[in-house]
Amino acid sequence: NSKLKIFTLNSNRELAEEIAKEVGLPLGKSTVTRFSDGEVQINIDESIRGCDVFIVQSTSGPVNEHLMELLIMLDAVKRASARTVSVVLPYYGYARQDRKARAREPITAKLVADLLTTAGATRAIVLDLHAPQIQGFFNIPIDHLVAVPILSDYFLGKDLDPSELVIVSPDHGGVTRARKMADRLKAPIAIIDKRRPRPNVAEVMNIVGNVEGKTAILIDDIIDTAGTISIAAQALIESGAKEVYACCTHAVLSGPAIERIDNSVIKELVITNSIQLSEDKTSPKIKELSVAKLLGDAIVRVFEEKSVSTLFD
Amino acid sequence: NSKLKIFTLNSNRELAEEIAKEVGLPLGKSTVTRFSDGEVQINIDESIRGCDVFIVQSTSGPVNEHLMELLIMLDAVKRASARTVSVVLPYYGYARQDRKARAREPITAKLVADLLTTAGATRAIVLDLHAPQIQGFFNIPIDHLVAVPILSDYFLGKDLDPSELVIVSPDHGGVTRARKMADRLKAPIAIIDKRRPRPNVAEVMNIVGNVEGKTAILIDDIIDTAGTISIAAQALIESGAKEVYACCTHAVLSGPAIERIDNSVIKELVITNSIQLSEDKTSPKIKELSVAKLLGDAIVRVFEEKSVSTLFD
Ligand SMILES: Nc1ncnc2c1ncn2[C@@H]1O[C@H](COP(=O)(O)O)[C@@H](O)[C@H]1O
Ligand SMILES: Nc1ncnc2c1ncn2[C@@H]1O[C@H](COP(=O)(O)O)[C@@H](O)[C@H]1O
Repeated sequence: NSKLKIFTLNSNRELAEEIAKEVGLPLGKSTVTRFSDGEVQINIDESIRGCDVFIVQSTSGPVNEHLMELLIMLDAVKRASARTVSVVLPYYGYARQDRKARAREPITAKLVADLLTTAGATRAIVLDLHAPQIQGFFNIPIDHLVAVPILSDYFLGKDLDPSELVIVSPDHGGVTRARKMADRLKAPIAIIDKRRPRPNVAEVMNIVGNVEGKTAILIDDIIDTAGTISIAAQALIESGAKEVYACCTHAVLSGPAIERIDNSVIKELVITNSIQLSEDKTSPKIKELSVAKLLGDAIVRVFEEKSVSTLFD
Repeated sequence: NSKLKIFTLNSNRELAEEIAKEVGLPLGKSTVTRFSDGEVQINIDESIRGCDVFIVQSTSGPVNEHLMELLIMLDAVKRASARTVSVVLPYYGYARQDRKARAREPITAKLVADLLTTAGATRAIVLDLHAPQIQGFFNIPIDHLVAVPILSDYFLGKDLDPSELVIVSPDHGGVTRARKMADRLKAPIAIIDKRRPRPNVAEVMNIVGNVEGKTAILIDDIIDTAGTISIAAQALIESGAKEVYACCTHAVLSGPAIERIDNSVIKELVITNSIQLSEDKTSPKIKELSVAKLLGDAIVRVFEEKSVSTLFD
């Protein structure tokens, strides 16, 4: 009978601690530091021979540091004779580089999948990939969890009147996600339809669907510089929405994001802890929900060889 | 007939320019930047279809940034239908993590070889690997160049009297390298023999060989924090050496290195440009030699499918 062990690295220790608590295990002992020249030094400080090892690490920024930590840890775990090694990636960095949009671009999301497999991953557990197609970049089993239920439950707790509610996708790519949330909240959807009438002319934001007098909830997978979301919120108010909430799974919040959110018409921004916010990224508008139980349940189910599909939506 | 193209990234642009000049070609056009969240963005700005592409990048610090740049560039070059893709690594980062010194350690030098191959490298050209065994970590052809001739020629130019000269290895691992330099300078060798008499007692530096009244040249592959080399130089002076030079291929010079060298008895430290020194790493004692011609010759010979072995020593 194999033993379950959960390890973590430096990107998201708080979430990993929470996951371990959900599972009812202490985190595996390991040391992750840097040599004087900045090279990653990893040592696993307990035997893992024959174990089923799960490594929790978001490849959030600094993405290259966090990814290399994960690859080196995988190498160490594999060589220490673990039975299986699953990577748990609450946030999958480089996911937006998932196709050649122009000639001679890399497809880094695929490269990352290959690197993880080469380093020794035998399974991956991920959350809200930027495109579900990224699952196909892996030749190892992959479980794709979604945070829509967690985000939806939070808004259900607000007791908003469904007839006064509308769920809004900030672009065409996110309509499926908005649809899922709308089903849970029994509300209709709307879509922000951006288009550029002529080259070098500002984009026009057109809203497909009725938002007049309603409470709008914008939903996206990633909020990065918060440009799209704050302009979308503004467009909703200008089209007669009463108030605008925004939510996302992955709060990258780089560059001017916090400032933009603070200055926007967004009433509240609901995020998850898939990415650990750095200390300078605070705003009274941000509400953080935890994905620890979701990921913990997935780990236990994978370990017990039970289906994870009930955690998909 | 195929075409030769040389690209570079951000670790060592000056050396790459010099190499391209030696080869008589402009560097290939590419854009290497960062997205707002720190993810690497690469675009190759000229056609490379059917070309033999060489990418020059040292995986020096920040090692994880430089390594990921290289891997992503490899992915882009491979997808842009290059005929072959050779990585030219003047400095190979993580080379010191080349074996399990303790239980449950990674072997990151092997991981890096696998990552490069996975990303698309079809050949590697490297310079003074920390251990020649790292060649065996690759399953693609690898050419291993050495800088001893360049370092030796510099000292030959000083017209030092061979009978007053001794080449010193700072440890047992470097004796072969010291021997090669000694042959070129027609000088004898000496070895610093470190040993710890009992645990928790300071190391004793014992010198094997005669250094009395001589000009000693310490040679190492990597000088990192400069602890070993400055203590070794001190031990040589205490054993009667007249003056001490030091030289190495790879000037990592992390942490207190510059301070230690400045405060040491070392008269001059001769290094190569395999690692581009950051601007804060300057010392009047440092003399930098270029490996551009060596690497340029290797690139041309590989491209022309000629033997590179004459560049080995
Ligand atoms: N880290 C990043 N930040 C911003 N844009 C990115 C990033 N990675 C990739 N992209 C670009 O975003 C586009 C894909 O975004 P999307 O249309 O939302 O799937 C592609 O054109 C990519 O070049
Ligand atoms: N970047 C680094 N800086 C310092 N020591 C390292 C580094 N990488 C690996 N090592 C350690 O250096 C030892 C190998 O050095 P050596 O005996 O010179 O081959 C191993 O015990 C490694 O754990």
